[in-house]
Amino acid sequence: MRVGFLGPKASYSHEAAQKIFPSFEKKAFDSISLAISAVEKNEVDYSVIPIENSTGGSITVTLDELVEKNVFISSEFLLPINHVFLSNSKKNKIDKIYSHAQGFAQCRNWIENKYPKAELIEVQSTSKAAQLSFEEENSAAIASEFAAKEFSLTILEKNISDSKSNETRFVVISNKENSPQGKNKTSIVFGVKDKPGALFDAIESFKRFGVNMTKIESRPSRKKNWEYLFFVDLDGNTTQKNILSALKELQEHCKDFKNLGSYSRVKT
Amino acid sequence: MRVGFLGPKASYSHEAAQKIFPSFEKKAFDSISLAISAVEKNEVDYSVIPIENSTGGSITVTLDELVEKNVFISSEFLLPINHVFLSNSKKNKIDKIYSHAQGFAQCRNWIENKYPKAELIEVQSTSKAAQLSFEEENSAAIASEFAAKEFSLTILEKNISDSKSNETRFVVISNKENSPQGKNKTSIVFGVKDKPGALFDAIESFKRFGVNMTKIESRPSRKKNWEYLFFVDLDGNTTQKNILSALKELQEHCKDFKNLGSYSRVKT
Repeated sequence: MRVGFLGPKASYSHEAAQKIFPSFEKKAFDSISLAISAVEKNEVDYSVIPIENSTGGSITVTLDELVEKNVFISSEFLLPINHVFLSNSKKNKIDKIYSHAQGFAQCRNWIENKYPKAELIEVQSTSKAAQLSFEEENSAAIASEFAAKEFSLTILEKNISDSKSNETRFVVISNKENSPQGKNKTSIVFGVKDKPGALFDAIESFKRFGVNMTKIESRPSRKKNWEYLFFVDLDGNTTQKNILSALKELQEHCKDFKNLGSYSRVKT
Repeated sequence: MRVGFLGPKASYSHEAAQKIFPSFEKKAFDSISLAISAVEKNEVDYSVIPIENSTGGSITVTLDELVEKNVFISSEFLLPINHVFLSNSKKNKIDKIYSHAQGFAQCRNWIENKYPKAELIEVQSTSKAAQLSFEEENSAAIASEFAAKEFSLTILEKNISDSKSNETRFVVISNKENSPQGKNKTSIVFGVKDKPGALFDAIESFKRFGVNMTKIESRPSRKKNWEYLFFVDLDGNTTQKNILSALKELQEHCKDFKNLGSYSRVKT
């Protein structure tokens, strides 16, 4: 079995992939998009990619790719994220900070407070940020302790996330639909017809059948300006009668419906 | 009157600010957060910042800042975004591309097709990207024609956005609440109480009073993990009886309510 992750090595995705699939061969991909394509094309059996951080919010590329590509969610995993501030330069010499967009979002208050004038350079992953900081004087990175070791960087400060309980939710992507039996969460995505109250009418079906909607998130449809797709998470799985009935009714009010899968959280 | 924008010079925010306030003095800020703080502290009268792109989706920093800071929306403006591919190097020598995260999101298919192996470096604005590309050989930028002129870069390709009708919605931020009279849009943000169906119960008030909800978007509350704030746009203004009644009922089901303002779109 081969498992893809958002690389380079020592990224948080790598850490999550190690914890979920300790004994499988791992392969780093340069972007979320490439990690998902590799699953679609059977180059790997699964890919482990971030979908949402508790402070920074959704990883929007992941949401968009789940719609565009023929893949499904087969499980999820929560990883505590403890960002550290890494550099081989002196604290007061640092004028440039590398991180992933989410690293900046999750440490926004800390940066404004400590380095309000630093140039912030967003790169594809925190491990890439660590690598770039290693190569450049007077630069630092916001990344993991794992990356500090991997790239021989000094930890200048620990626990710099604005929220002390910062976590990222990862999903395991597969090109086959899960068996829903026994799973406790279902994710769907849909667009609504262009008429007033259409979204309300669509989600009213959950209320009617007693289905608990735990999350709703919108993204551009990428088909028509200012038209949206809605990503909804539900408690339960698609073997349950009330969920099946609600989804059937929902589809009368919506278009472009996709069931992303029923799945559970992996505990390690 | 002084108007702030997300800089540096020649950014799309600068272009929007020029169109909305052609005769006022302009001041560039290094981040959305600084542009909003300047309004809060009365250093500028207004700031013009992006809130949403038709392809890339919400500018999440803007949403978070509208909650955290004591500011309001006083108008909105739609700017067509025509990204171009800029460099002073040869097409086949380019191995690094600078842009804003939204520039990458809006040209994702084009990049995957033309430069699948290029290193993508996200910076704070497309105009910053143009400046960095000007300074570095074999690099390119995804930015505006306005930035091409400003930084003396050659346009290697035009119209590279995945959607040919790509637009960004900008908001004008003020530290005073607008008079709602005559305005056609109202934006609010709220959290819901921690019980099943709470979000549904909250937005049911719009249905009951015939208020059209045109958008719903969620963001982390930044107070508790996996708890959300919902940003909702409504047709109409807060002098209308049905909107007042719906908002009153909504507040019985929600917490942390903020009225971001009733406002209209500026046409130029």
